[in-house]
Amino acid sequence: MPAVPAADGLTIRPATETDLPAIVAMLADDPLGATRESPDDLTPYIEAFKELSGDPHQQLVVAVREERVVGTLQLTFLPGLSRKGATRALVEGVRIHADERGSGLGGVLMEWAIDTSRRADCRLIQLTSDATRTDAHRFYERLGFEASHVGFKRAL
Amino acid sequence: MPAVPAADGLTIRPATETDLPAIVAMLADDPLGATRESPDDLTPYIEAFKELSGDPHQQLVVAVREERVVGTLQLTFLPGLSRKGATRALVEGVRIHADERGSGLGGVLMEWAIDTSRRADCRLIQLTSDATRTDAHRFYERLGFEASHVGFKRAL
Repeated sequence: MPAVPAADGLTIRPATETDLPAIVAMLADDPLGATRESPDDLTPYIEAFKELSGDPHQQLVVAVREERVVGTLQLTFLPGLSRKGATRALVEGVRIHADERGSGLGGVLMEWAIDTSRRADCRLIQLTSDATRTDAHRFYERLGFEASHVGFKRAL
Repeated sequence: MPAVPAADGLTIRPATETDLPAIVAMLADDPLGATRESPDDLTPYIEAFKELSGDPHQQLVVAVREERVVGTLQLTFLPGLSRKGATRALVEGVRIHADERGSGLGGVLMEWAIDTSRRADCRLIQLTSDATRTDAHRFYERLGFEASHVGFKRAL
């Protein structure tokens, strides 16, 4: 994908390995992420980034303002049989830098994900949000998402 | 993956194109699937099956008893940065033939998915279930899944 100029001097472009410190810092600066991430040791993230980069169904993007990474999300296209062979889009790892929360950047990133998925002929876009993130739930509902499902997870 | 003999003369193996009529019949024989699927026109499913088969992160499997397809699910491995670069497994399209419901086959298929994901070093397995499928929710909880998330979807 080419870099996409968005509103207010913001650009959305594919993440590169040099973005990893900024991305991992955002993943860790979060009530849930704080206990799950290791921003002082990037080794596992570099490995994961290589896997992601080699998978044509994956797009890890960053939002950049004045050369600073201020947001990220991961978009996956999932072929499947159900719903008449519909390809669905899955959004994971949406994070906005603390300085930019409330700026509308989350909406810009999600609209990018919605537009990109539609142009790729996905018929559905989906995500799960931790049940404790009630502000995020209102945000997704404003973007036209419906809280139609229960999200189950199990650690392995 | 090789075919895996499971309990009671049951085998779990990768789906082939010749399994599509049986798989689509199961997708359609469902309160939600009835309005979404087109079992009389397999064309879109054949296209989707080709996409799935070419994606090394995807496994569409069937459970077979006495040469009859009696269950299916789709397992996807998703590389990602969050949770220290954890690869997660996603389960979609779990369907059990009407004749086999209550037989324990759903549990056998899901245990296959859990074991396969663990052996592939996934650190998490996740799925969403329509909020109306309350029996399914109890089933996933018995398998150790936690209803920790809200699942949001938006048609495109």
